[in-house]
Amino acid sequence: MPTTSDDCIFCKIVAGELPARIVRQDERTIAFMDIAPATYGHTLVIPRNHTRDLLEIEPEDLQAVAVAAQQVAARASERFGAAGINLINSCGSAAWQTVFHFHMHVIPRYNDDPLRLPWVPAQGDPDEIATAAAQLIG
Amino acid sequence: MPTTSDDCIFCKIVAGELPARIVRQDERTIAFMDIAPATYGHTLVIPRNHTRDLLEIEPEDLQAVAVAAQQVAARASERFGAAGINLINSCGSAAWQTVFHFHMHVIPRYNDDPLRLPWVPAQGDPDEIATAAAQLIG
Ligand SMILES: [Zn+2]
Ligand SMILES: [Zn+2]
Repeated sequence: MPTTSDDCIFCKIVAGELPARIVRQDERTIAFMDIAPATYGHTLVIPRNHTRDLLEIEPEDLQAVAVAAQQVAARASERFGAAGINLINSCGSAAWQTVFHFHMHVIPRYNDDPLRLPWVPAQGDPDEIATAAAQLIG
Repeated sequence: MPTTSDDCIFCKIVAGELPARIVRQDERTIAFMDIAPATYGHTLVIPRNHTRDLLEIEPEDLQAVAVAAQQVAARASERFGAAGINLINSCGSAAWQTVFHFHMHVIPRYNDDPLRLPWVPAQGDPDEIATAAAQLIG
Protein backbone atom coordinates (compact mmCIF):
# COMPACT_ATOMS: atom_id res chain seq x y z
CA MET A 1 0.00 0.00 0.00
CA PRO A 2 1.31 3.46 -0.80
CA THR A 3 1.81 5.95 1.98
CA THR A 4 -1.06 8.42 1.98
CA SER A 5 -2.06 11.76 3.42
CA ASP A 6 -5.59 12.67 4.43
CA ASP A 7 -7.12 15.44 2.37
CA CYS A 8 -4.58 15.07 -0.43
CA ILE A 9 -6.47 15.05 -3.70
CA PHE A 10 -3.72 13.17 -5.50
CA CYS A 11 -3.72 10.44 -2.85
CA LYS A 12 -7.46 10.14 -3.45
CA ILE A 13 -6.80 9.70 -7.16
CA VAL A 14 -4.23 7.00 -6.39
CA ALA A 15 -6.76 5.29 -4.14
CA GLY A 16 -9.50 5.51 -6.78
CA GLU A 17 -11.59 7.74 -4.53
CA LEU A 18 -11.54 10.66 -6.95
CA PRO A 19 -11.99 10.27 -10.69
CA ALA A 20 -9.12 10.97 -13.05
CA ARG A 21 -8.26 10.08 -16.61
CA ILE A 22 -5.34 7.77 -15.93
CA VAL A 23 -3.22 7.16 -19.01
CA ARG A 24 -0.32 5.15 -17.62
CA GLN A 25 0.51 3.35 -14.42
CA ASP A 26 3.16 1.14 -12.92
CA GLU A 27 4.07 -0.12 -9.50
CA ARG A 28 5.35 3.24 -8.27
CA THR A 29 3.60 5.88 -10.40
CA ILE A 30 0.41 6.95 -12.09
CA ALA A 31 -0.04 9.47 -14.91
CA PHE A 32 -3.31 11.29 -15.51
CA MET A 33 -4.63 14.26 -17.43
CA ASP A 34 -4.38 17.71 -15.84
CA ILE A 35 -7.94 19.03 -15.60
CA ALA A 36 -6.72 22.58 -16.28
CA PRO A 37 -4.36 21.87 -19.15
CA ALA A 38 -1.78 24.42 -20.21
CA THR A 39 -1.73 22.83 -23.67
CA TYR A 40 -3.45 19.93 -25.42
CA GLY A 41 -2.44 16.69 -23.73
CA HIS A 42 -1.01 18.15 -20.51
CA THR A 43 -0.39 15.22 -18.16
CA LEU A 44 0.79 14.84 -14.56
CA VAL A 45 2.98 12.00 -13.35
CA ILE A 46 2.96 11.33 -9.61
CA PRO A 47 4.35 8.73 -7.24
CA ARG A 48 1.76 6.52 -5.58
CA ASN A 49 3.43 7.27 -2.27
CA HIS A 50 2.44 10.55 -0.74
CA THR A 51 5.41 12.84 -0.67
CA ARG A 52 5.24 16.60 -0.49
CA ASP A 53 7.78 17.74 -3.04
CA LEU A 54 11.18 17.39 -4.69
CA LEU A 55 12.98 17.83 -1.39
CA GLU A 56 11.09 14.95 0.21
CA ILE A 57 10.52 12.38 -2.51
CA GLU A 58 12.48 9.14 -2.23
CA PRO A 59 15.06 8.85 -5.01
CA GLU A 60 13.51 5.57 -6.18
CA ASP A 61 10.14 7.24 -6.62
CA LEU A 62 11.77 10.20 -8.37
CA GLN A 63 13.53 7.89 -10.80
CA ALA A 64 10.31 6.05 -11.52
CA VAL A 65 8.48 9.34 -12.13
CA ALA A 66 11.22 10.52 -14.51
CA VAL A 67 11.08 7.37 -16.62
CA ALA A 68 7.28 7.40 -16.65
CA ALA A 69 7.31 11.05 -17.73
CA GLN A 70 9.70 10.20 -20.55
CA GLN A 71 7.32 7.51 -21.77
CA VAL A 72 4.33 9.85 -21.65
CA ALA A 73 6.41 12.43 -23.53
CA ALA A 74 7.23 9.89 -26.23
CA ARG A 75 3.56 9.07 -26.68
CA ALA A 76 2.64 12.76 -26.82
CA SER A 77 5.28 13.36 -29.43
CA GLU A 78 4.13 10.46 -31.61
CA ARG A 79 0.40 10.64 -31.15
CA PHE A 80 -0.26 14.37 -30.88
CA GLY A 81 2.46 15.45 -33.26
CA ALA A 82 3.77 17.66 -30.48
CA ALA A 83 6.71 19.74 -31.66
CA GLY A 84 8.27 19.71 -28.20
CA ILE A 85 7.75 18.80 -24.57
CA ASN A 86 8.38 20.55 -21.28
CA LEU A 87 8.87 18.68 -18.07
CA ILE A 88 8.26 20.93 -15.11
CA ASN A 89 8.34 20.27 -11.41
CA SER A 90 7.34 22.98 -8.98
CA CYS A 91 8.67 22.64 -5.46
CA GLY A 92 7.16 25.13 -3.02
CA SER A 93 4.62 27.90 -3.37
CA ALA A 94 7.35 30.27 -4.53
CA ALA A 95 7.84 27.90 -7.48
CA TRP A 96 4.11 27.79 -8.29
CA GLN A 97 3.36 24.49 -6.48
CA THR A 98 -0.33 24.31 -5.57
CA VAL A 99 -0.93 20.63 -4.78
CA PHE A 100 1.47 19.31 -2.20
CA HIS A 101 1.90 15.80 -3.51
CA PHE A 102 4.92 15.63 -5.81
CA HIS A 103 3.97 15.87 -9.49
CA MET A 104 5.85 16.25 -12.72
CA HIS A 105 4.09 18.16 -15.46
CA VAL A 106 4.46 16.73 -18.95
CA ILE A 107 3.42 19.59 -21.24
CA PRO A 108 3.28 18.92 -24.98
CA ARG A 109 4.33 21.92 -27.00
CA TYR A 110 3.23 23.05 -30.44
CA ASN A 111 4.81 25.52 -32.79
CA ASP A 112 3.73 29.01 -31.83
CA ASP A 113 1.60 27.83 -28.94
CA PRO A 114 0.88 30.62 -26.49
CA LEU A 115 2.31 28.96 -23.37
CA ARG A 116 3.95 31.29 -20.91
CA LEU A 117 4.72 30.43 -17.30
CA PRO A 118 3.17 30.71 -14.88
CA TRP A 119 0.04 29.88 -16.77
CA VAL A 120 -3.29 30.71 -15.25
CA PRO A 121 -5.03 27.38 -14.68
CA ALA A 122 -8.51 27.33 -16.08
CA GLN A 123 -10.89 24.41 -16.33
CA GLY A 124 -10.27 22.63 -19.62
CA ASP A 125 -12.81 21.32 -22.10
CA PRO A 126 -13.75 17.85 -20.76
CA ASP A 127 -14.29 16.40 -24.25
CA GLU A 128 -10.91 17.59 -25.43
CA ILE A 129 -9.25 16.16 -22.31
CA ALA A 130 -11.02 12.84 -22.87
CA THR A 131 -9.82 12.75 -26.47
CA ALA A 132 -6.24 13.44 -25.47
CA ALA A 133 -6.44 10.77 -22.76
CA ALA A 134 -7.68 8.20 -25.24
CA GLN A 135 -4.74 8.98 -27.50
CA LEU A 136 -2.23 8.62 -24.67
CA ILE A 137 -3.46 5.38 -23.14
CA GLY A 138 -1.54 2.15 -23.67
CA MET B 1 34.41 7.52 -22.15
CA PRO B 2 31.11 9.30 -22.68
CA THR B 3 29.60 9.45 -26.12
CA THR B 4 30.23 12.90 -27.61
CA SER B 5 29.10 15.10 -30.46
CA ASP B 6 31.38 17.50 -32.31
CA ASP B 7 30.47 21.13 -31.86
CA CYS B 8 28.34 20.45 -28.80
CA ILE B 9 29.28 22.99 -26.16
CA PHE B 10 28.08 20.78 -23.33
CA CYS B 11 30.21 17.88 -24.56
CA LYS B 12 33.15 20.29 -24.48
CA ILE B 13 32.35 21.13 -20.87
CA VAL B 14 32.20 17.42 -20.03
CA ALA B 15 35.57 16.96 -21.73
CA GLY B 16 37.10 19.92 -19.90
CA GLU B 17 37.63 21.78 -23.17
CA LEU B 18 35.38 24.67 -22.23
CA PRO B 19 35.36 26.25 -18.77
CA ALA B 20 32.37 25.88 -16.50
CA ARG B 21 31.73 26.23 -12.80
CA ILE B 22 31.05 22.59 -12.00
CA VAL B 23 29.33 22.14 -8.64
CA ARG B 24 28.61 18.41 -8.60
CA GLN B 25 29.62 15.38 -10.59
CA ASP B 26 29.25 11.64 -10.59
CA GLU B 27 29.86 8.80 -12.98
CA ARG B 28 26.98 9.70 -15.28
CA THR B 29 26.33 13.42 -14.74
CA ILE B 30 27.81 16.84 -14.17
CA ALA B 31 26.12 19.94 -12.77
CA PHE B 32 27.36 23.45 -13.51
CA MET B 33 26.21 27.03 -13.25
CA ASP B 34 24.09 28.47 -16.05
CA ILE B 35 25.99 31.50 -17.38
CA ALA B 36 22.73 33.32 -18.07
CA PRO B 37 20.92 32.57 -14.83
CA ALA B 38 17.20 33.05 -14.54
CA THR B 39 17.61 33.41 -10.77
CA TYR B 40 20.46 33.32 -8.26
CA GLY B 41 22.02 29.86 -8.27
CA HIS B 42 20.50 28.58 -11.54
CA THR B 43 22.26 25.29 -12.32
CA LEU B 44 22.16 22.81 -15.19
CA VAL B 45 22.47 19.06 -14.75
CA ILE B 46 23.51 17.06 -17.82
CA PRO B 47 24.46 13.50 -18.64
CA ARG B 48 28.09 13.00 -19.62
CA ASN B 49 26.87 11.06 -22.63
CA HIS B 50 25.79 13.20 -25.53
CA THR B 51 22.10 12.81 -26.08
CA ARG B 52 19.88 15.30 -27.83
CA ASP B 53 16.83 15.52 -25.61
CA LEU B 54 14.21 13.83 -23.45
CA LEU B 55 13.08 11.62 -26.30
CA GLU B 56 16.58 10.25 -26.85
CA ILE B 57 18.19 10.06 -23.42
CA GLU B 58 18.80 6.58 -22.03
CA PRO B 59 16.58 5.92 -19.00
CA GLU B 60 19.64 5.21 -16.83
CA ASP B 61 21.07 8.63 -17.66
CA LEU B 62 17.70 10.28 -17.07
CA GLN B 63 17.43 8.64 -13.65
CA ALA B 64 20.95 9.78 -12.76
CA VAL B 65 20.16 13.34 -13.86
CA ALA B 66 16.96 13.36 -11.80
CA VAL B 67 18.71 12.28 -8.62
CA ALA B 68 21.59 14.70 -9.20
CA ALA B 69 19.09 17.53 -9.76
CA GLN B 70 17.37 16.63 -6.50
CA GLN B 71 20.67 16.86 -4.66
CA VAL B 72 21.48 20.24 -6.21
CA ALA B 73 17.99 21.40 -5.27
CA ALA B 74 18.54 20.34 -1.67
CA ARG B 75 21.77 22.31 -1.51
CA ALA B 76 20.13 25.35 -3.06
CA SER B 77 17.34 25.18 -0.55
CA GLU B 78 19.68 24.90 2.42
CA ARG B 79 22.47 27.19 1.34
CA PHE B 80 20.68 29.94 -0.56
CA GLY B 81 17.57 29.92 1.56
CA ALA B 82 15.61 29.39 -1.64
CA ALA B 83 11.88 29.39 -0.99
CA GLY B 84 11.25 26.95 -3.81
CA ILE B 85 12.80 25.18 -6.79
CA ASN B 86 11.71 24.57 -10.35
CA LEU B 87 13.04 21.68 -12.38
CA ILE B 88 12.56 22.33 -16.07
CA ASN B 89 13.49 20.30 -19.10
CA SER B 90 12.94 21.70 -22.55
CA CYS B 91 12.69 19.17 -25.36
CA GLY B 92 12.65 20.75 -28.81
CA SER B 93 12.79 24.32 -30.05
CA ALA B 94 9.04 24.63 -29.59
CA ALA B 95 9.69 24.00 -25.88
CA TRP B 96 12.47 26.61 -25.67
CA GLN B 97 15.40 24.17 -26.04
CA THR B 98 18.47 25.99 -27.38
CA VAL B 99 21.38 23.63 -26.63
CA PHE B 100 20.78 20.17 -28.02
CA HIS B 101 22.46 18.15 -25.31
CA PHE B 102 19.90 17.09 -22.73
CA HIS B 103 19.89 19.36 -19.68
CA MET B 104 17.72 19.77 -16.63
CA HIS B 105 17.41 23.29 -15.26
CA VAL B 106 17.47 23.56 -11.47
CA ILE B 107 16.12 27.04 -10.78
CA PRO B 108 16.06 28.24 -7.17
CA ARG B 109 13.04 30.40 -6.45
CA TYR B 110 12.63 33.25 -4.00
CA ASN B 111 9.50 34.85 -2.67
CA ASP B 112 8.28 37.43 -5.14
CA ASP B 113 11.11 36.80 -7.58
CA PRO B 114 10.26 38.05 -11.05
CA LEU B 115 10.71 34.76 -12.93
CA ARG B 116 8.38 34.25 -15.85
CA LEU B 117 8.90 31.70 -18.61
CA PRO B 118 10.28 31.85 -21.13
CA TRP B 119 12.89 34.06 -19.57
CA VAL B 120 15.15 36.08 -21.82
CA PRO B 121 18.66 34.75 -21.23
CA ALA B 122 21.13 37.50 -20.50
CA GLN B 123 24.73 37.16 -19.44
CA GLY B 124 24.88 36.97 -15.67
CA ASP B 125 27.24 38.74 -13.29
CA PRO B 126 30.35 36.51 -13.19
CA ASP B 127 31.12 37.34 -9.56
CA GLU B 128 27.62 36.50 -8.45
CA ILE B 129 27.74 33.22 -10.37
CA ALA B 130 31.08 32.38 -8.78
CA THR B 131 29.67 33.05 -5.33
CA ALA B 132 26.67 30.84 -5.95
CA ALA B 133 28.94 28.09 -7.30
CA ALA B 134 31.11 28.21 -4.20
CA GLN B 135 28.02 27.82 -2.04
CA LEU B 136 26.78 24.83 -4.03
CA ILE B 137 29.99 22.84 -4.24
CA GLY B 138 30.51 19.72 -2.10
ZN1 LIG C 1 -0.82 12.68 -1.55
ZN1 LIG D 1 26.79 16.99 -26.20
